[in-house]
Amino acid sequence: MREFDLIRRLQEIICIPDAPYAADCALGIGDDAALLKPPAGKQLVACTDSLVEGVHFHRGASPASIGHKALAVNLSDLAAMGAEPAWFLMSLSLPHSDPDWLDGFARGVAELARESGVLLAGGDVTSGPLNVCITALGLVEPGRALLRSGARPGDRVAVSGTPGAAAHALQAIDAGEVPDARDLSALEFPRPRLGLGRRLRGLATSCIDISDGLLADLGHVLEASGAGAELDLASLPCPASMASLPESRRWPLQLTGGDDYELCFTIPETSEHRLEDLAKSSATEVTVIGSITGTGELVVREPGGDFYRAPRAGYEHFAVDADGTQ
Amino acid sequence: MREFDLIRRLQEIICIPDAPYAADCALGIGDDAALLKPPAGKQLVACTDSLVEGVHFHRGASPASIGHKALAVNLSDLAAMGAEPAWFLMSLSLPHSDPDWLDGFARGVAELARESGVLLAGGDVTSGPLNVCITALGLVEPGRALLRSGARPGDRVAVSGTPGAAAHALQAIDAGEVPDARDLSALEFPRPRLGLGRRLRGLATSCIDISDGLLADLGHVLEASGAGAELDLASLPCPASMASLPESRRWPLQLTGGDDYELCFTIPETSEHRLEDLAKSSATEVTVIGSITGTGELVVREPGGDFYRAPRAGYEHFAVDADGTQ
Repeated sequence: MREFDLIRRLQEIICIPDAPYAADCALGIGDDAALLKPPAGKQLVACTDSLVEGVHFHRGASPASIGHKALAVNLSDLAAMGAEPAWFLMSLSLPHSDPDWLDGFARGVAELARESGVLLAGGDVTSGPLNVCITALGLVEPGRALLRSGARPGDRVAVSGTPGAAAHALQAIDAGEVPDARDLSALEFPRPRLGLGRRLRGLATSCIDISDGLLADLGHVLEASGAGAELDLASLPCPASMASLPESRRWPLQLTGGDDYELCFTIPETSEHRLEDLAKSSATEVTVIGSITGTGELVVREPGGDFYRAPRAGYEHFAVDADGTQ
Repeated sequence: MREFDLIRRLQEIICIPDAPYAADCALGIGDDAALLKPPAGKQLVACTDSLVEGVHFHRGASPASIGHKALAVNLSDLAAMGAEPAWFLMSLSLPHSDPDWLDGFARGVAELARESGVLLAGGDVTSGPLNVCITALGLVEPGRALLRSGARPGDRVAVSGTPGAAAHALQAIDAGEVPDARDLSALEFPRPRLGLGRRLRGLATSCIDISDGLLADLGHVLEASGAGAELDLASLPCPASMASLPESRRWPLQLTGGDDYELCFTIPETSEHRLEDLAKSSATEVTVIGSITGTGELVVREPGGDFYRAPRAGYEHFAVDADGTQ
């Protein structure tokens, strides 16, 4: 398949003409750049994330899961801002131009794009090691975006879903075992929490998506907010597949395993009663797991009340080196 | 260098607080996404392009040239639309976290960002094979963007600079020779023609940047415009280093060599007299090399009037395969 046929094929499969902001894309694929008209009175929410083979997906991952996940991790960032997804651009580096692989990949992107109402507005295809770089563009009313910086002492810390499932699947794969099907789905087809994110506007005081691990990402919120937190491990919701794991194996996966793409957010104590309706309306499990404190420290307590010390904070690229070499 | 130190370092070197649209970046690096406020009454111009080692730059390329070029190829797309550059996002995949490499790279990005007045608003760093994906965001008044689709029979075809220099440098490098210094600069530090692009608004009927080669890119204009063109090789401006090359070696490099990042544009015949002022005000050499025709064909004539047949149209990724295998 030649470069321009390949671009046309991607466009055919992925572009959704009836996406909510499709009419605001004055010019899409086929020129030097796309022309977009952000509606008056909206801020543009922009993020970019690349998926690299061997780092973000295992070698056995299907083309559809790679496509899905590349878009999902970006939409997850929009969800964490409370933004409405509008458009995305995709820059694709491919080691080959296998039409079957490409179709599977494009279908993975397209399914999530359709579900999320986001339009492919432009991109680029090049030869090279497999790398999918997506830039997602969303919209939000000024002053309504969910930031990391608004958590205040007394706020409740809540989390969506059951963190740890993706890390549990990856651990099984790395050990040559067959992962639990739901865990594998969490790893390969994460669902960006867009519905929850938009319902958190005006309610949450801070929000982040858990891509690097719960403790690491909550740590970013605490740093940005100048606050601390106390988490209660007894309340941490557990994936069904991990219920029988000893806590010494379960907690590290749940607290420091990356790739969850759940939302961790804070709400004022006085709004805690609204969480049940929020969970129902967004069809997303939501659990309070702790509180914000004024200490500046992140304290995790075991069910008996003892301090729990996590083996590491979370996933970090280039974490090994201290002097410039890895 | 750890991931978050690395991001901080990039931010320190690259972010320019006094960029023209810096105040319209309500939230930059440090949250899940950037918040941008496109000024009222402007369209957003968005493009993305990745640079991959071994494909877009040779292994000996300096970190500064890689940084410069990754931004330049994107700003060149904005130039081809006649857009004002405003912000960019950068997703970086790095095989190592060498601070010296990173500083050189960041300085290459920063110098061009400063010169072009464009602000780094967000990004992502991951480990993996070297890949620099940039998404550039520019602004243009509605209806003023330069498209590929407006060329009309009788329009003059013009080109900026002296196409072929980058391909000439690459040919020398591939042959183990020392390239001409100006050719090497064209290859490693291409200058996006932003000043020319913005002056072409309201004047050019179509515009494209020459990234794949003059014939291939003019071909895109002709396809989008439903037109043909006749080019006169006698008028094709020649890089100084190539003046002594036989035409049989020079023309293919000039017509089909990629990586020029000059602009190829069309203007009505009645506006041809404005080109001299345009060249002067944008400090860019501009040369008329042919005319648009109604035939649908791209015809190239040698100085004596004979038809010239180019050995290939231009650079294309995945150009070798016909059946899905390379």
